[in-house]
Amino acid sequence: MILTVTLNTAVDITYRVPALRPHTSHRVTEVTERPGGKGVNVARVLAALGHEVTVTGFAGGTTGGELRDRLAALPGIVDALAPVAGATRRTVAVVDERTGDTTQLNEPGPVVTAAEWTAFQKTYEDLLGSVSAVALCGSLPPGLPVGAYAALVRAARAAGVPVLLDTSGEALRRGIAGRPDIVKPNADELAELTGSHDPLRATQDARRRGARTVVASLGAEGLLAHTPEGLWRAAPPARVHGNPTGAGDSAVAGLLSGLAERLPWPDRLARAVALSAATVLSPVAGEFDHPAYERLLPRVAVTGEVNAA
Amino acid sequence: MILTVTLNTAVDITYRVPALRPHTSHRVTEVTERPGGKGVNVARVLAALGHEVTVTGFAGGTTGGELRDRLAALPGIVDALAPVAGATRRTVAVVDERTGDTTQLNEPGPVVTAAEWTAFQKTYEDLLGSVSAVALCGSLPPGLPVGAYAALVRAARAAGVPVLLDTSGEALRRGIAGRPDIVKPNADELAELTGSHDPLRATQDARRRGARTVVASLGAEGLLAHTPEGLWRAAPPARVHGNPTGAGDSAVAGLLSGLAERLPWPDRLARAVALSAATVLSPVAGEFDHPAYERLLPRVAVTGEVNAA
Repeated sequence: MILTVTLNTAVDITYRVPALRPHTSHRVTEVTERPGGKGVNVARVLAALGHEVTVTGFAGGTTGGELRDRLAALPGIVDALAPVAGATRRTVAVVDERTGDTTQLNEPGPVVTAAEWTAFQKTYEDLLGSVSAVALCGSLPPGLPVGAYAALVRAARAAGVPVLLDTSGEALRRGIAGRPDIVKPNADELAELTGSHDPLRATQDARRRGARTVVASLGAEGLLAHTPEGLWRAAPPARVHGNPTGAGDSAVAGLLSGLAERLPWPDRLARAVALSAATVLSPVAGEFDHPAYERLLPRVAVTGEVNAA
Repeated sequence: MILTVTLNTAVDITYRVPALRPHTSHRVTEVTERPGGKGVNVARVLAALGHEVTVTGFAGGTTGGELRDRLAALPGIVDALAPVAGATRRTVAVVDERTGDTTQLNEPGPVVTAAEWTAFQKTYEDLLGSVSAVALCGSLPPGLPVGAYAALVRAARAAGVPVLLDTSGEALRRGIAGRPDIVKPNADELAELTGSHDPLRATQDARRRGARTVVASLGAEGLLAHTPEGLWRAAPPARVHGNPTGAGDSAVAGLLSGLAERLPWPDRLARAVALSAATVLSPVAGEFDHPAYERLLPRVAVTGEVNAA
């Protein structure tokens, strides 16, 4: 069993409009909804890969009820979400049918009280007893201490469960000090954390800040992994074109499943890159194209060097 | 008791963002929600004026449940909404805090089946037995026959209940043939119906199409009423500046309450204009400013002539 934590879960709504024109009124031609938040997206990909996954974090209000109803309809995912008095946030993606571009509106999420946070930590520590890996994903809802992720990282390490952290900004800066096994920043998040736009230098710096391994996602160029065992780059066989929504979450699912299966690093990275590219190629945002994944997997180029023992 | 019908009810969501920039991602700084759809807005104003109001139409899904919960919290409003299997629509108003401009996204609403429509008509006819006036408001949800309003108008007339119709486009064109007591188009709706941009000529034409009285809302110029008793214009004492959202619904509430209280036309029009202006002046979209309403009411200029007997 793999555990994913999404402290700021969401109901992700997509609106299609013929053309987005600010300061006018639009008739939405198509509405789609799905359970969201990064850890929920990671869980969906893990379940599609055949892993058993438990989802935790907070859910509350009408939107929280809807999130849980929709999660219950997904096979292979166990709902262990903790209650919160406030309402789970919505995100609205407005797709302009003329250009294909997306305008994103993200609600902030419910204010989590100290008592709710304490109760959640108890749930989380109980869950750690029966999982092989845990991913901590996404932004912090209002009200949580900025060091929330550092506390969750330390609890996982105390329970002997490998932990991956995928967040940004101050939550990443503070969380990394808890010494997670893996962080997976993208180029912007890495630059914000370290002040360096040179990925090699920045991943080294991020390791010094507390991460055992740093896997930087560099968009079309693939992944750069700085690990205690060695340094690798993994890239798709060709540039893929499509919708990048969820590509980072698919990469996390690839890394996490490879960790749970104790694959060597090059195989984990190949899986993460192939899943990520297959997500960009999928016509449905955030889903991955299974045949494309299987076609891409053996063609991912992994280059690098193993550290001297 | 006054009845308002909203076939396409809504949960109205307002997002404030620092600045709306298409094709980028936005953190929403404030989320507000309220029950919506034109007839629900009219009912809210009527209740604030001290009238007892029953609200009917359709509600379904998670959003329909939320709508009903929020309606239950409003004093003076009786919920007689009929069930629908599909989900009640949301509308999202995105307010750009920099400019104050609003970008509106309206979901289409649930598809109403023939059986749901038949069941609703029975509910509606039962309600007509105990009301003094009825308003039919807003767009038709998908699935309803385009002549739906004509059927509801005829049922009201058969029950001897005065009926006001406030809709647009084909729903207005077809509904007016049912011979409603009052229609309240704005200038654009009236021009679309009649092909004429001259309000005097267009209101005459709309009467020939079946409306006993036509009250045209002409924005800042107030109202033009073409009735069997005479022709009147009613205008606010000065141009008001603010948010026009809901001003038309407030005008309907003014006309409807005046009708239920059997006020003479000039008094009904003065009330409608004062409520409408007080809604533009309110800092909260769709609410009216009570002190402003009472200050404006005696200062509305009503001019016109009574027809020769």
